[in-house]
Amino acid sequence: MEFQECFPLWTKLTPSQQNTIDKSLICRSVKKGETIHSGGMDCTGLIVIKSGQFRAYILSDEGREVTIYRLFDLDICLLSASCMIRSIQFDITIEAEKDTRFWIIPAEIYKQIMETSAPAANYTNEIMAARFSEVMWLMEQIMWKSMDKRIAAFLLEETSIEGTNDLKITHEGIACHLGTHREVVTRMLHYFQKEGILRLARGVVEVTDIPKLNAICDS
Amino acid sequence: MEFQECFPLWTKLTPSQQNTIDKSLICRSVKKGETIHSGGMDCTGLIVIKSGQFRAYILSDEGREVTIYRLFDLDICLLSASCMIRSIQFDITIEAEKDTRFWIIPAEIYKQIMETSAPAANYTNEIMAARFSEVMWLMEQIMWKSMDKRIAAFLLEETSIEGTNDLKITHEGIACHLGTHREVVTRMLHYFQKEGILRLARGVVEVTDIPKLNAICDS
Repeated sequence: MEFQECFPLWTKLTPSQQNTIDKSLICRSVKKGETIHSGGMDCTGLIVIKSGQFRAYILSDEGREVTIYRLFDLDICLLSASCMIRSIQFDITIEAEKDTRFWIIPAEIYKQIMETSAPAANYTNEIMAARFSEVMWLMEQIMWKSMDKRIAAFLLEETSIEGTNDLKITHEGIACHLGTHREVVTRMLHYFQKEGILRLARGVVEVTDIPKLNAICDS
Repeated sequence: MEFQECFPLWTKLTPSQQNTIDKSLICRSVKKGETIHSGGMDCTGLIVIKSGQFRAYILSDEGREVTIYRLFDLDICLLSASCMIRSIQFDITIEAEKDTRFWIIPAEIYKQIMETSAPAANYTNEIMAARFSEVMWLMEQIMWKSMDKRIAAFLLEETSIEGTNDLKITHEGIACHLGTHREVVTRMLHYFQKEGILRLARGVVEVTDIPKLNAICDS
């Protein structure tokens, strides 16, 4: 697929704006595990994912992480261009969870277009609102949901993303996504195993009862 | 102060847009404790606070609250017009913490202006980014900070907002702001009292050692 087909704003731009983007567009590939953006790094720009998977997370002073959202094929990453919007006052890190190909519209180019184009500014609004909503959802999870529900929700999300019930993930990895300790996750996974919801092996969580997991999640 | 002086976007609008706002602008007063906006209510519009204080909070299924931000004189409230932006997928409640006077630009009027005006759309972006940043800050607090630091930070914020060290607030009230239980707050306040940081009386928390409270907050 070409960039123009992947970028919903394209048809709402003037020929001159389209031309500016065409001339400055960067195409990149990263390997799984690479960091694309972090608080201390440069302001990359607006990212459009061609194929692959990104994870955005925050980091505590002690190095604990919590995943705040994920981005998939054709998703737009705005916070990699957070310098464009003065009032964004927080740092996130974005890393590739799979080998990923993506386009970058450099921040200064997108900013310049956004300043004069109402469609571009409104499009940016919608992307920010979508991320804001994901963070609000996560906050409600953290505030009101107990850890069993959060782990159940995470496992369900993973089976859906990966398209398989055999999840290659460590207890440490799950703890990392949820911003908790490995011991908490291990205890809960063993409880789930006893309930017949999953089977544990080294580096693998095999979900065997999706409906039960759903029931925990919704209870 | 007149509306035009309180609304930073004003000078960037066309005379026709200014005229549209002038004709539809609503001026309202609410008493302390009144709810201005809630998930189930109509989409009010963009609110500009003339004087007073609002609190925005989320509510769990069981009725527990957590304050997500406050708005003061001249602040703009965007989420009271969340219907304007399709991707906003969460509900907040906004209530007056003090008697408050404010203006409303009806949602459909502001939306219509935002669709054609890049300055209006970018202004909206900045407001949303500011609220998003406050929520991210809060999430980091919840994830990484222990309750002693969160209570210390809350008390410091209150002394600064109220301009006094004698805070008229109950333990239940503090718990409510922080989304925790009264018992947790009471235990911590008694600990702070023993440390000589504050004095407790019925419905009053008198902060006596601001530097010590700051030290807990930053530790």
